[in-house]
Amino acid sequence: MGLIVQKYGGTSVADLDRIRNVAERVVRTYDNGHNVIVILSAMAGVTDKLIGLAASVTEAPDKREMDVLLATGEQTTSALLAMMLRSMNYPARSLLGHQAEVVTDCDFGNARIIEIGAKRMKELLEKRTIVVVAGFQGTDLQGNITTLGRGGSDTSAVAIAAALKADTCEIYTDVDGIYTADPNICHKARKLKEISYDEMLNMASLGAKVLQIRSVGFAKKYNVPVHVRSSFSEEEGTMVVNENSGMEQLMVSGVTHNKDEARITLKKVPDQPGIAAKIFSPIAETGIVVDMIIQNTRVGGQTDLTFTVPKADFKKTLEIQKRIAAEIGAEDVFGDDHIAKVSVIGVGMKNHSGVASIMFNTLARENINIIMISTSEIRISCIIEEKYTELAVRVLHTAFGLDAECETS
Amino acid sequence: MGLIVQKYGGTSVADLDRIRNVAERVVRTYDNGHNVIVILSAMAGVTDKLIGLAASVTEAPDKREMDVLLATGEQTTSALLAMMLRSMNYPARSLLGHQAEVVTDCDFGNARIIEIGAKRMKELLEKRTIVVVAGFQGTDLQGNITTLGRGGSDTSAVAIAAALKADTCEIYTDVDGIYTADPNICHKARKLKEISYDEMLNMASLGAKVLQIRSVGFAKKYNVPVHVRSSFSEEEGTMVVNENSGMEQLMVSGVTHNKDEARITLKKVPDQPGIAAKIFSPIAETGIVVDMIIQNTRVGGQTDLTFTVPKADFKKTLEIQKRIAAEIGAEDVFGDDHIAKVSVIGVGMKNHSGVASIMFNTLARENINIIMISTSEIRISCIIEEKYTELAVRVLHTAFGLDAECETS
Repeated sequence: MGLIVQKYGGTSVADLDRIRNVAERVVRTYDNGHNVIVILSAMAGVTDKLIGLAASVTEAPDKREMDVLLATGEQTTSALLAMMLRSMNYPARSLLGHQAEVVTDCDFGNARIIEIGAKRMKELLEKRTIVVVAGFQGTDLQGNITTLGRGGSDTSAVAIAAALKADTCEIYTDVDGIYTADPNICHKARKLKEISYDEMLNMASLGAKVLQIRSVGFAKKYNVPVHVRSSFSEEEGTMVVNENSGMEQLMVSGVTHNKDEARITLKKVPDQPGIAAKIFSPIAETGIVVDMIIQNTRVGGQTDLTFTVPKADFKKTLEIQKRIAAEIGAEDVFGDDHIAKVSVIGVGMKNHSGVASIMFNTLARENINIIMISTSEIRISCIIEEKYTELAVRVLHTAFGLDAECETS
Repeated sequence: MGLIVQKYGGTSVADLDRIRNVAERVVRTYDNGHNVIVILSAMAGVTDKLIGLAASVTEAPDKREMDVLLATGEQTTSALLAMMLRSMNYPARSLLGHQAEVVTDCDFGNARIIEIGAKRMKELLEKRTIVVVAGFQGTDLQGNITTLGRGGSDTSAVAIAAALKADTCEIYTDVDGIYTADPNICHKARKLKEISYDEMLNMASLGAKVLQIRSVGFAKKYNVPVHVRSSFSEEEGTMVVNENSGMEQLMVSGVTHNKDEARITLKKVPDQPGIAAKIFSPIAETGIVVDMIIQNTRVGGQTDLTFTVPKADFKKTLEIQKRIAAEIGAEDVFGDDHIAKVSVIGVGMKNHSGVASIMFNTLARENINIIMISTSEIRISCIIEEKYTELAVRVLHTAFGLDAECETS
């Protein structure tokens, strides 16, 4: 008998029929002798609806009150599921964030979990009660309601699994696992049986959008085995685990792409201390998130500086930079919002040299020009022209031996 | 500078425009130098919608989980109002039941308030913060969410006003006060400036439906001045106060009517100990609420027994009583669902003899037959034929000097 934490996302609890589907899955696990903690999101669309409601009140809703409003979404689904389980004659109890003692800091709207008290959850589990916890929400030390940011229910689930030393944390979503590439553009993409926390961290931040990135960090820190799977099928999904747990040692585990960025280049920037701060502070102040930054030293005390921002912030950033370029004496500012980022990710990279050269050669063979390059320990990303995105993903997928056919070899 | 508690009902917070109207009223009071605690209901219709949602889950929803679900309604309006007040640059904070320390017993769906901790509320008031409290909800000693039953926000408001020794508890609703009779059927009805707690208790239970009856009991116990008024006008409403507070000493303060009852008569019931229990226990077990009970002793060890039940339960009650009549040897059972109850209410009754005779004579003059009579210290109720209801209310209103014209005399 183990303890299983199951987290169901918004699409899995979108209406009463789907909540019934969740209830049936929960009792199957329970009937197999396990203790179960269920973490729920709000019904799909509800959080956006509440945000819209607040937006009709004021342009800049107070963050603390926003969290009070948003927390109703998960409260509703939790009550409904507990009600449903009890009507099926299973002992179940819903707990809100403060009742489950999910203690966070007071950064409303994006709070971080400090600790999980879990006293009440343990008491309920000892009585073999199914515990239904409203995800996404917590309480700060003053007893205010907080929320954990978009996708925060994932973090609730992993944190609770860590606090209670659960055997597995199952994340039920509308996809059936983590793929080697986006199956919509790469038909040979295949589902991974396992992926490491580090690979997942790189995947998530590059747009794989399956798990909140903070939850993966949490899972890694506390070594919580996370099972990403679909709530609409019985199929096994993908286990997110520690890389030492005997996983298949591929050089590259996946190819991801992201078309949501734009590139800005400042030409002939004077190469002086403090220049970077002058360039990036005004962007940060407006809340624009910069992703890649690349700077090549040039001869003659001047340098070209290129960085990427979300496509939606392209025009605004360009305007800001034109002003700054004049101030700091850069020669020119230009940009391009028809770019894409293609990345290959894999813990295997650490042990295999030559990943970068395979990647660059593969793209070169297709005459795909590489505009920017950035690397991390287990990831290489290239900025290319947007129109080549699908082609690049497919040829890289083949080049790194990820195509579905290869699986049988 | 005083402390004003303002409670706004569902119609007063039915949409964002109306919530804005509430916000403006709140800041007017605040700007006049008062501290303000606002108690809110859910948006009109929301509680019924949530009950409907639960009904789709199961016929008999778990009561604890039901309260978790229902509590989201007041949470939503409280967050929205606090958000709106802050966007208007007023310091405001929302508190849920547990944050406002509204401690109740654990009778989910109909919980009673045990105490109000109010620590957090006092802290906020000391900083001149407008405190917005989600009405209708509390927390039991284990930290579970509870709700106070239909109209429970009235009780939240009065209890909080009592705990914090507020100067007034204003109840904002969609009517502009308490009238001497229903203005729809008695055009000479006029709004009362004052009414006593006891009169209000009798009014409320007779269908005046303006205040939850429990809140009036609370107000009486802690001597909280309650001001019932409309959120759609600036007019003064009706003060519900202690009868000693120098109110106008009318013999009768109001005439009420209720067409929602039906009458059941058991003829020639053996006059033995235990018979009443045999008659009423099966009705109570089915959850039917009996209002008036009248029993006249007859010669020969037999008695006729008449009682009233809600019209909706008439047929069911008749069936049950036919079975019981056979068991206990009563001669016959018959009933009538074309009746109405007309009542006159007034603390002045205690000091004036003759109220009953005025009432009976007035009805007799119009050839209105009195079927049943019941009295309390400050109320006389007569069951009459339903078709005479409006006539009875009007002639009694005139007979007791309540007509609007009399006000100028």
